[in-house]
Amino acid sequence: MISYVPLDEIQRVGRAASADPIVRAELLADLCRINTLYMIMQAGSGHIGSSFSSMDLVVWLWTAALVDPNSGAPGADTYFSSKGHDAPALYALLIALEKLDFALLHRLRRLGGLPGHPDVETPFIAANTGSLGMGISKAYGMARAQRLAGRTGRIVVMTGDGELQEGQIWESLQPVANERLSEITVIVDHNKLQSDAAVSAVSDLGAIADKFRAFGWEVRRADGHDLRAIRDVFADFATLADRPKALIADTIKGKGVSFMEGLAHGDQTYHFHAGAPSLKDYVAGVDELAARVNARLKTLGQGAIALAPAPFPDRTAPVRPERLVVAYGDELLQMARQRPDIVVLDADLLSDCGIEAFKEELPARFVECGIAEQHMVSAAGGMALAGLLPVVHSYACFLSTRANEHIYNNATERRKIIYTATLAGLVPGGPGHSHQSVRDISAIGSIPGLTAIEPCSEREARLAIRWAVEQNTGSSYLRFVNVPLDLPYSLPASYALEVGRGVMLRAGGDVALVGYGPVLLGNAWRAADELAAQGIGAAVINLPWLNRIDEAWVRDALGRFPAIVTLDNHSVTLGQGVMVAAALARTGVRADVLSLGLTDTPACGSNAEVLAHHGLDAPSIVRAALSCCDPSTLPRAQGRPEPGRGATGSRSTGAGPKVEARTR
Amino acid sequence: MISYVPLDEIQRVGRAASADPIVRAELLADLCRINTLYMIMQAGSGHIGSSFSSMDLVVWLWTAALVDPNSGAPGADTYFSSKGHDAPALYALLIALEKLDFALLHRLRRLGGLPGHPDVETPFIAANTGSLGMGISKAYGMARAQRLAGRTGRIVVMTGDGELQEGQIWESLQPVANERLSEITVIVDHNKLQSDAAVSAVSDLGAIADKFRAFGWEVRRADGHDLRAIRDVFADFATLADRPKALIADTIKGKGVSFMEGLAHGDQTYHFHAGAPSLKDYVAGVDELAARVNARLKTLGQGAIALAPAPFPDRTAPVRPERLVVAYGDELLQMARQRPDIVVLDADLLSDCGIEAFKEELPARFVECGIAEQHMVSAAGGMALAGLLPVVHSYACFLSTRANEHIYNNATERRKIIYTATLAGLVPGGPGHSHQSVRDISAIGSIPGLTAIEPCSEREARLAIRWAVEQNTGSSYLRFVNVPLDLPYSLPASYALEVGRGVMLRAGGDVALVGYGPVLLGNAWRAADELAAQGIGAAVINLPWLNRIDEAWVRDALGRFPAIVTLDNHSVTLGQGVMVAAALARTGVRADVLSLGLTDTPACGSNAEVLAHHGLDAPSIVRAALSCCDPSTLPRAQGRPEPGRGATGSRSTGAGPKVEARTR
Repeated sequence: MISYVPLDEIQRVGRAASADPIVRAELLADLCRINTLYMIMQAGSGHIGSSFSSMDLVVWLWTAALVDPNSGAPGADTYFSSKGHDAPALYALLIALEKLDFALLHRLRRLGGLPGHPDVETPFIAANTGSLGMGISKAYGMARAQRLAGRTGRIVVMTGDGELQEGQIWESLQPVANERLSEITVIVDHNKLQSDAAVSAVSDLGAIADKFRAFGWEVRRADGHDLRAIRDVFADFATLADRPKALIADTIKGKGVSFMEGLAHGDQTYHFHAGAPSLKDYVAGVDELAARVNARLKTLGQGAIALAPAPFPDRTAPVRPERLVVAYGDELLQMARQRPDIVVLDADLLSDCGIEAFKEELPARFVECGIAEQHMVSAAGGMALAGLLPVVHSYACFLSTRANEHIYNNATERRKIIYTATLAGLVPGGPGHSHQSVRDISAIGSIPGLTAIEPCSEREARLAIRWAVEQNTGSSYLRFVNVPLDLPYSLPASYALEVGRGVMLRAGGDVALVGYGPVLLGNAWRAADELAAQGIGAAVINLPWLNRIDEAWVRDALGRFPAIVTLDNHSVTLGQGVMVAAALARTGVRADVLSLGLTDTPACGSNAEVLAHHGLDAPSIVRAALSCCDPSTLPRAQGRPEPGRGATGSRSTGAGPKVEARTR
Repeated sequence: MISYVPLDEIQRVGRAASADPIVRAELLADLCRINTLYMIMQAGSGHIGSSFSSMDLVVWLWTAALVDPNSGAPGADTYFSSKGHDAPALYALLIALEKLDFALLHRLRRLGGLPGHPDVETPFIAANTGSLGMGISKAYGMARAQRLAGRTGRIVVMTGDGELQEGQIWESLQPVANERLSEITVIVDHNKLQSDAAVSAVSDLGAIADKFRAFGWEVRRADGHDLRAIRDVFADFATLADRPKALIADTIKGKGVSFMEGLAHGDQTYHFHAGAPSLKDYVAGVDELAARVNARLKTLGQGAIALAPAPFPDRTAPVRPERLVVAYGDELLQMARQRPDIVVLDADLLSDCGIEAFKEELPARFVECGIAEQHMVSAAGGMALAGLLPVVHSYACFLSTRANEHIYNNATERRKIIYTATLAGLVPGGPGHSHQSVRDISAIGSIPGLTAIEPCSEREARLAIRWAVEQNTGSSYLRFVNVPLDLPYSLPASYALEVGRGVMLRAGGDVALVGYGPVLLGNAWRAADELAAQGIGAAVINLPWLNRIDEAWVRDALGRFPAIVTLDNHSVTLGQGVMVAAALARTGVRADVLSLGLTDTPACGSNAEVLAHHGLDAPSIVRAALSCCDPSTLPRAQGRPEPGRGATGSRSTGAGPKVEARTR
């Protein structure tokens, strides 16, 4: 069982137990911590450490320091978090303040619920964040707009401290200071820990206050868990009407639960950054928080809180999951032992990129760049110019877009670099659109000399990095799904990578399902099972090449199918499917062609939810294949259903009328 | 006539006239200024101001302060310019030092010559730059690589001062300081002027030295034209072996020619930033430089220099050129007078984006962001959240890539923003690959809710911005060619924009030439003239929609052509052509399809040179069309020539063997 603080208890304890707003806020913060833990346990993931370090500040701001943030009332203040990771804290608070429906407490990271990172579709969320470093620029835009409209109201932006490694922060500080946008206040949640390790170990920021001052800001420093100190800083700031203000708030990551607070003794890695805790840790955390609340209530002469129980969420784990990124990292390390020219660069996503062992074994050839993707990619360019083979790591969503111009600039130097982009595609669906990389093929696909490939299994992951290191004379972009999955298929024993050419995973004569990567090839396999049950032979074809299509292979391998469905774990506009379809046209293949992929911003939700929502689950593929196959050739009499709700894509058949079905 | 300093005179005057290295360097710098002016006059464009402000520093570094930069000798130093705009100065010097062939003096910005911005294909050029802000990161990578290899040697990077507005600069300063990479020295060419105006007017940087110090750097400040002062700073730096060093060099933009030095009295705009000077200014500039050299030579007891003459380059100007960006800016201003929600954002490219008049008339709604594209785009996001309609401007190469994640983040907020991207496509070919935007359709084409369009004439430019403001409910990306061109076609009088649908500019029954924008539609028209002379009817079809293809229109409008050639002023991998070809497959149209577009890094050269080089001039289109048309249906007996050298693209016909012709 897990448990949460129900609304009536929040009303009693967090909003009425004391006349002192500071005592109330302290109580409310701990109640919100209990509910944040509950939300993250329900969701299966979420950022505890960052939520807890900013919790006291956020509660104080919304209950005391600011004028009804985001209410739209005259003179109302605006608050948002630039780091975005602390969304669960803000959600818990907004629910406690009855600004969000209480039922949403049970819907973190679920379709139609509360997204993993902030989204303005949620009431009282002022900006979409989670892509780091954008918040102060957004505040600048809001402030300029307010002034143009003659409106007032402070704009308070919470940033992380690791986030300050992003160059955009420093781009944005100067214009705010130059234009004396005094309505803007930045709070740095200075908890000294980022994703992988201590900020000082990743990329030390030195004296943050001095830096802000050098950029023209008024700076204060205070204990971010001392509400009296925070109150005084805001009172002080209110007297300064001619310049922007920054509060460097010294906080503790995971504050509020003793064993989640900061690094454990002798440890280098913080263990409560992004995932759900174990049930044991969860229970211990709630017990500690409840005990502190109850002790306070006792001094106030009030009764202990009553938590409401909820069942422990049922999550099915894969049985023999393939972990592509782990296999990749292992193969890379094996090669690096033999090749001293290999260097590894990372942007604070060590474990998610499979390179922990590399760092451990070859520290001299491991370069931690922090949250500074542009710097990392250009640094790799400099290393390549000096004769090394850099292998650059980050999430696909950040690497392909934040450093987009930099990957291109490196490409113009015609040196060999490998870009390893993880967390690619629609799932995991929980973090939301800032982290779901569904347009990176498009973003990097036209970079000259850069070949993109997505493996569909651990074995192909090993083949891919070995091909990139040993065979490809140009640069490579390796795209990896991070979700561990049971795979229904295996590659032929004789399989070897050949640029632009795919491989049949499953034979079938009526329709070809063509795609890449474990998520959609797995769903295609399951769809083929269902189609087979209906007497339709669906081939499943793995084409790992994302921007290189061998037209001879297309003609030979696909030319014999009467119907072809392309599958993109990516936007359908400019993914692999459009290249396959174009190759069919250019090679004169005549087939009914339908392309599945995303046509809108990726939704946040459980993996199953978002795959169904975007028409990329097995039933959607079945529907698409049925709509694509010519009924006269099918073995059983059956109608040709139009693509259903989930069947996202673009199709047309022969010279008949255009049929398009696109859902969001 | 124009003139240059020939090699023998350089040897006599610049390298031997005095035993004092400072006197020699001062003389050499002025000789190089004369030759820089010559190169820029030959090329028709180039950055005088930035070349002249850094000239004295560059000459001193390469002749005295550094160990044979980039020679590869043991202990050799490395030098490169991060801003890259001052490439002509470095070229003039490398030619004078006989490190580059003297004949290259006549080949600035020409195919196979000296690129407009640095490229490592040129001897002694250490890094590709011109995309601002990347240099210190590259130096970091080089330094780490050197240390790994046990090599020594300083790495000296020249940056602009406007360039410091780029956030990546601040991303890169911290790790260099944290790792005490003392081999790195940054020189800030602090000439106080950037593209549009004074740095202090665009986005004031405040106390640059304080900022570098706050990031952990050792800083000196000196007159960048005083070689003795520069000498002393480098001697001082040599004593500091435990930290990176920065020299803030106070310089004068255009230094060396009195009327090119800094802003003219009362002027806001610097007039010698990027273009070639008038012949009158050129002659006056050379006269002044030669007079100063001769006066020095006289004091040294030596004869005056003898310049070598060269003919004034013959350049044909268009007769009645269409200026799309100007028309765009005018139409935007007209609408803005009626709509107070329109705000304009700029990143230091005012005149190139057609918004000078807007700034002049509506200054309160004009936001100058400086060279900070990420900040600009996120600021626009904040403004859109606050109810405004932001129109965001920069070159396509920077806007679509530097701010790629930011455009996406804004898109996830589902507010309406217009992105105006100028200098799109392969031409002008002179600035080189950092400025030639040939992958922006790919980079932004999959952003949800963002519709991209490229107008082909002034009239369509006006229609496009009016459509984006008044009709499109989502966000728009407007892509503009900046080259003024005579257009052989005109749009039908009744023409109106319809999403995803094109318009026939010229009828013809044998082959359809489908594309967008003035460059390739103009060339298609000229190709159609030539094809008509051969008895082949080529239709020219304007499809301005870059990421929206109406499949019904494709079937109806293109379905009747036996052959279709798509034309991309962009990479062929993921441009409009692949979407058209895919639409043909999806609608069941059977035609011979060939797609032209770039298949490699865009070459630097004159517009005619690069269009021919990449197979996008009229003769290449003729060859492509001929290779695509079925000879049995053609009116005259003729072979089907394979695509020639220029014919870049991918073609195949029917079920025959795959034919691909790709040239770089």
